[in-house]
Amino acid sequence: MYQELKQRVLAANLQLPKYGLVTFTWGNVSEIDRENGVIAIKPSGVEYDVMSENDIVIVDLEGNRVEGDLNPSSDTATHIELYKAFPNIGGIVHTHSRNATIWAQAGKDIPALGTTHADYFYGDVPCTRQLTHDEITTDYEKNTGLVIIEEFTKRHIDPQAMPGAIIAGHAPFTWGKDGSDAVHNAVVMEEVAAMATATRSISPEAAIQPELLDKHYNRKHGKDSYYGQK
Amino acid sequence: MYQELKQRVLAANLQLPKYGLVTFTWGNVSEIDRENGVIAIKPSGVEYDVMSENDIVIVDLEGNRVEGDLNPSSDTATHIELYKAFPNIGGIVHTHSRNATIWAQAGKDIPALGTTHADYFYGDVPCTRQLTHDEITTDYEKNTGLVIIEEFTKRHIDPQAMPGAIIAGHAPFTWGKDGSDAVHNAVVMEEVAAMATATRSISPEAAIQPELLDKHYNRKHGKDSYYGQK
Amino acid sequence: MYQELKQRVLAANLQLPKYGLVTFTWGNVSEIDRENGVIAIKPSGVEYDVMSENDIVIVDLEGNRVEGDLNPSSDTATHIELYKAFPNIGGIVHTHSRNATIWAQAGKDIPALGTTHADYFYGDVPCTRQLTHDEITTDYEKNTGLVIIEEFTKRHIDPQAMPGAIIAGHAPFTWGKDGSDAVHNAVVMEEVAAMATATRSISPEAAIQPELLDKHYNRKHGKDSYYGQK
Amino acid sequence: MYQELKQRVLAANLQLPKYGLVTFTWGNVSEIDRENGVIAIKPSGVEYDVMSENDIVIVDLEGNRVEGDLNPSSDTATHIELYKAFPNIGGIVHTHSRNATIWAQAGKDIPALGTTHADYFYGDVPCTRQLTHDEITTDYEKNTGLVIIEEFTKRHIDPQAMPGAIIAGHAPFTWGKDGSDAVHNAVVMEEVAAMATATRSISPEAAIQPELLDKHYNRKHGKDSYYGQK
Repeated sequence: MYQELKQRVLAANLQLPKYGLVTFTWGNVSEIDRENGVIAIKPSGVEYDVMSENDIVIVDLEGNRVEGDLNPSSDTATHIELYKAFPNIGGIVHTHSRNATIWAQAGKDIPALGTTHADYFYGDVPCTRQLTHDEITTDYEKNTGLVIIEEFTKRHIDPQAMPGAIIAGHAPFTWGKDGSDAVHNAVVMEEVAAMATATRSISPEAAIQPELLDKHYNRKHGKDSYYGQK
Repeated sequence: MYQELKQRVLAANLQLPKYGLVTFTWGNVSEIDRENGVIAIKPSGVEYDVMSENDIVIVDLEGNRVEGDLNPSSDTATHIELYKAFPNIGGIVHTHSRNATIWAQAGKDIPALGTTHADYFYGDVPCTRQLTHDEITTDYEKNTGLVIIEEFTKRHIDPQAMPGAIIAGHAPFTWGKDGSDAVHNAVVMEEVAAMATATRSISPEAAIQPELLDKHYNRKHGKDSYYGQK
Repeated sequence: MYQELKQRVLAANLQLPKYGLVTFTWGNVSEIDRENGVIAIKPSGVEYDVMSENDIVIVDLEGNRVEGDLNPSSDTATHIELYKAFPNIGGIVHTHSRNATIWAQAGKDIPALGTTHADYFYGDVPCTRQLTHDEITTDYEKNTGLVIIEEFTKRHIDPQAMPGAIIAGHAPFTWGKDGSDAVHNAVVMEEVAAMATATRSISPEAAIQPELLDKHYNRKHGKDSYYGQK
Repeated sequence: MYQELKQRVLAANLQLPKYGLVTFTWGNVSEIDRENGVIAIKPSGVEYDVMSENDIVIVDLEGNRVEGDLNPSSDTATHIELYKAFPNIGGIVHTHSRNATIWAQAGKDIPALGTTHADYFYGDVPCTRQLTHDEITTDYEKNTGLVIIEEFTKRHIDPQAMPGAIIAGHAPFTWGKDGSDAVHNAVVMEEVAAMATATRSISPEAAIQPELLDKHYNRKHGKDSYYGQK
């Protein structure tokens, strides 16, 4: 029934090693079918080079397995919370990609320092607060989603203009209109994170001009965009 | 009519991913045909691995499309200003290559620290001033070209002895006698930018001796050069 | 007699260049057959691309060669001490992989800064003390094993929850249930070491929350683990 | 007449791009035939992927071309001085490999910080003094060789125990018993230079214990060595 969805989610998962975003099995992509209320997601701990279409697991929005023989990603509950809170996103990626993870470990936003960043992320990529002891010991993966949502709510951030976040002490999540778009944003976050680390090493006070952030973001997004082919 | 030009510009664009200078579509190469007053340039937002010769767009020096069905690079106006101001250059490259972009984000010249740099760039690679609010909101891409030209005029820099610049908060441009030569200089700028970042991390006060800069630049360029085969 | 063991050890050794952990011959993998009291190990100074199954050397726990024409790795005595002291490990890896070696050269533990680290190493990866003059001049490789063991004893570290260590001024060792598992841990140590260096450059005081370390380690290890397929 | 020598020197030159030590044509390998008093060296400015055996140039020890149609490397005079001063070396490599060049640009010795370094270089890799104005303007390449030799003489360094040096503001040279061995040492210098930069970033005061330097160097070199197969 969900063959096409599984095919797309498999393809998106295979982009993770292709773009150098994962070591071993440290990453997962999901995509939601909002009409049918199900999510297709990578199985837990399965190597990318042996994964096949039918290994992709279908779960409902309560996390119950609807199709598939394998356990879904242990991060499934995080994906579900994000899909529920952000109604316009269609795909989610989680990785431990090196440079984005560095900022997560530092517990700091990935600062917007130039147009490369502004082309995709409208402002600093938010780093969540640390989870509390209770949030870690009970429903950890669900709470990981909730602290992302809390950060977006508290800072009044639009998840479509900011397609990703990093979790303090952990690693990044990105999203997009589908799984493949979410992978695209994961590649970009990794690149701008690497640039940010090195930029700050030669200029600790570097920051983008607000008008340049506006210009580049709006050049590629929204009704007045003029980048690319229409 | 411009088939050979398009072929060369396609080939030069394909060198960008080959040399690791681009992520996705973040770069473009153009070449000018000064006799006919036209420029061949990459189409906007098209992936390198599907680009064909006839996707290359021909525009005149007012930016009007002369040949091709696709929109030209959104950076076309920057290329045009540079071709108009620098009459001896034949090709231009724009990328967001990681290490050169770092210096642009830091708003600092890429300092000349050794002979690798001196072999190609006769002095620090200039970083422009930030664009003003008005320059960003109106004719942004054209103004990007103009601030580069302003910097070369103000500092009395010869664009043939300094085949590139970085834009504050943005990224590098390089040029050369044709598109392929401009790509060559983009590779070099990326390499010397990486070396400069790391050099300064172990020696913040490092700088090249002026006589060594002269020696290496003139060993490869101008009437007394003796590098390579004649 | 030990053909299958040699085959496995050859395969594990060939993973070292595949994962980019070695330059030239700078690494070795061994595996123990505890029933027969022998170790299979890489021959000393032999290039990976010409190594064959029968080049793998079989030695007993006193270091005497039991099978094979070549000299075993010069680090064999270190492997032997670790197998004797840590009865539950089945394979050992030694490399000079760049990022783990950096922390060894700095004489500092690789700090646990995030969940990537916590998924595999239950705490900071210990760096041994420096060897004394006498330990270096006499039985150097044996003493290298002994200072690792000393560190684990002194700090009450369980070698199964901490599958690796770094030697001050030298380089890393990792272990696992077999040779291939030890290589897996060597890849992880290299990755988390790289992340730690960069994290500390943007946040010198970064550290993981103890409860997050617990959570991630126990999510993947022990009786309450729920990562992967069962 | 020198066909075998040219073949070996071609092969050694082709190892430079293979090991990632060169961008474009920025490197050269030579080898000496001491019996016949000639040197085989890369032609100047020729790309590695089009170079053939007969492009390799044979020059005598005064720098006169004995065989070949192309100009020899512009660095030939440096090679000649080193061959004349160091009678036991058979091959020389010059590159602008990134990490070794960083230390050259910083004007600092590559510090011996661990056993990886000690296995090949018996102490800090010396950085020469800067050349004077006159040394740069007249006989620059010859003087580049002479400042290396001066440094070894002044510090009483044995060129066989220290198979390389870096030139202040410029880049590295390495040598060995033949061209291929010199390339091997160039790869090692690049790796230990990268390790040194990062080590110092987390531990500015790091240094190797003298007895560990002795141990590792002598484990691989000289009459009491026991690494590898005999």
